Amino acid sequence: MITREKEPPNLEMPFNALEDFVTPNERFYVRCHFPIPKINERDWRLKVEGKVARPFEVTMEDLRQMPAHTITATLECAGNSRVFLVPKVKGVQWELGAIGNAEWTGVRLRDLLQRAGMANEAREIILEGADNGTIAEPPRPAGKINFARSLPFEKAMDDVLLAFAMNGEPLSAAHGFPLRAVVPGWYGMASIKWLRRIIVTDQPFNGYYQSIDYAYWQRGDSGPALVPLAEMQVKAEIARPENNEVIRANSKYLVKGAAWTSKAIVTKVEVSCDSGRSWGEATLNGDATENAWRLWGFEWQTPAPGNYILMARATDSRGRMQPMEHDLNRGTYMISHCLPIEVEVR
Amino acid sequence: MITREKEPPNLEMPFNALEDFVTPNERFYVRCHFPIPKINERDWRLKVEGKVARPFEVTMEDLRQMPAHTITATLECAGNSRVFLVPKVKGVQWELGAIGNAEWTGVRLRDLLQRAGMANEAREIILEGADNGTIAEPPRPAGKINFARSLPFEKAMDDVLLAFAMNGEPLSAAHGFPLRAVVPGWYGMASIKWLRRIIVTDQPFNGYYQSIDYAYWQRGDSGPALVPLAEMQVKAEIARPENNEVIRANSKYLVKGAAWTSKAIVTKVEVSCDSGRSWGEATLNGDATENAWRLWGFEWQTPAPGNYILMARATDSRGRMQPMEHDLNRGTYMISHCLPIEVEVR
Repeated sequence: MITREKEPPNLEMPFNALEDFVTPNERFYVRCHFPIPKINERDWRLKVEGKVARPFEVTMEDLRQMPAHTITATLECAGNSRVFLVPKVKGVQWELGAIGNAEWTGVRLRDLLQRAGMANEAREIILEGADNGTIAEPPRPAGKINFARSLPFEKAMDDVLLAFAMNGEPLSAAHGFPLRAVVPGWYGMASIKWLRRIIVTDQPFNGYYQSIDYAYWQRGDSGPALVPLAEMQVKAEIARPENNEVIRANSKYLVKGAAWTSKAIVTKVEVSCDSGRSWGEATLNGDATENAWRLWGFEWQTPAPGNYILMARATDSRGRMQPMEHDLNRGTYMISHCLPIEVEVR
Repeated sequence: MITREKEPPNLEMPFNALEDFVTPNERFYVRCHFPIPKINERDWRLKVEGKVARPFEVTMEDLRQMPAHTITATLECAGNSRVFLVPKVKGVQWELGAIGNAEWTGVRLRDLLQRAGMANEAREIILEGADNGTIAEPPRPAGKINFARSLPFEKAMDDVLLAFAMNGEPLSAAHGFPLRAVVPGWYGMASIKWLRRIIVTDQPFNGYYQSIDYAYWQRGDSGPALVPLAEMQVKAEIARPENNEVIRANSKYLVKGAAWTSKAIVTKVEVSCDSGRSWGEATLNGDATENAWRLWGFEWQTPAPGNYILMARATDSRGRMQPMEHDLNRGTYMISHCLPIEVEVR
């Protein structure tokens, strides 16, 4: 793993190590905002409260008695590929590997919400982690805050899982032990780790990680408005070759990578080996599953020696295609344009 | 006037020049975020649109045919007194004079809204100025934006004026010619100058000056949430003596100033001449009017030579009193704690 920040740990998969549809747990990127909370399962409780008829709390033992579900979901950090933004911007300098695909096992968020009985005015569901600390740069709240994000009522009642296992193993401390949310199709910041509270509200939640951080600008008729990040954008990444790789001239090279989207499936991946002038279609591996990535490959007949720029471009079943440039209204997030991989053919 | 920024002009009244209940136009503070727009009255139009039954636009001539109202309202910049924050924070370094009280003449916002016929789902009213430009520091939207703020439906339908005259004279370019909003009881950022559009929305407006700028942190059960600035806080300021003034020992000195609040009247101003250890009650001048400041005076029997810290502390009819310290959740705004004025008695 590539260390992007030592403490708290922020670790990235070296994306050229991509092999399988399921990312091994020890290769799955780790994003932490605060120190990893030390949680003893016996003392841990999950509270469900706010605009509900019957607030309650549960133990892990209680949750294991509930119907369990297993889903496959790809999580991408909303700042993945940030190192491709020039000039450099603030934030963890992720390259290509702040993404992974896993099988998650746990209980449905909606089962807990239904047990609590939501009020008619319920509008958003806040998920709060046990991780906390202070924010260094203004605009910032005073004192300690917990990492928290909200989901619209509809998404919370749809497919959100509260997972206690990842690829068949209990969650590790870095991945949110004993319980984390998995919000399929959304950037990773929504999948709250070390979950400790579920709060039903009748107001739009405007916490730090929903407004100052993890938000972008949406231009409407009344000018740009700040909107919390949500769905992942259609995107393909090249795992091999890696940036600055040296490749043999006049031979065959298997370009490979992964592609993903949200509320749709990836239907096409194209590869350009000449800076985006011409494109050839890649082969998509396996069947498409919503909310999980697809691996793909493209055989490149390498040309004469020289420097070349490779790009991949995904299209999804809703006809959405990656753009060639980063949209500046997205600031330091949602970096889903076609990323240039520079290689030397020798 | 004290120049705090040359271009665009940001000008502050030297607060020791405070004399009258009404601030003369040439002494009224000027806060600009972008260059002052050059507006020709004949070409100017005000649009009323969004979630309305009958969108329309009006000329200044149309507005002058409507029933005119005159109100007295104090406007304080939300960053007034920022220079008192130690360590120094970002933003215009206002001292005491980013405040003024004027008689405003114009038409009621509600009269225009009623003419347009608001939809049942109307929730906020966005006021947009003609002033525009780009934001330098992230998080920022890309490209040009116009200065804009929203008001809750209830406030917009209550006492908001669209003013074309200030103290009986047409608005100057710096004060929003030909038309500006005056939002009584609210910090100045809500009183949009160079008004050009009124947009009725069914969503909370989350523009730049409503979220990243001109917002503060409100701590609730689900942690701190970002909230747009709104009402002015109860506050007294000392106009004389000014900071670092030299005063004659063993004599009488008339300490004087102004005090204001919102949705209430100022009922008491106390003055301390010994760093807040003891307080004496000041005399309030004239009758109290909601949304306008009250001038006050306090006769100080000056002591033996030495250095002294004076403070004023206002209480309003709702029992709200100024705190002794700035609340850090308010960041660089709402600076309404008791401000220390240092003097030398000689």
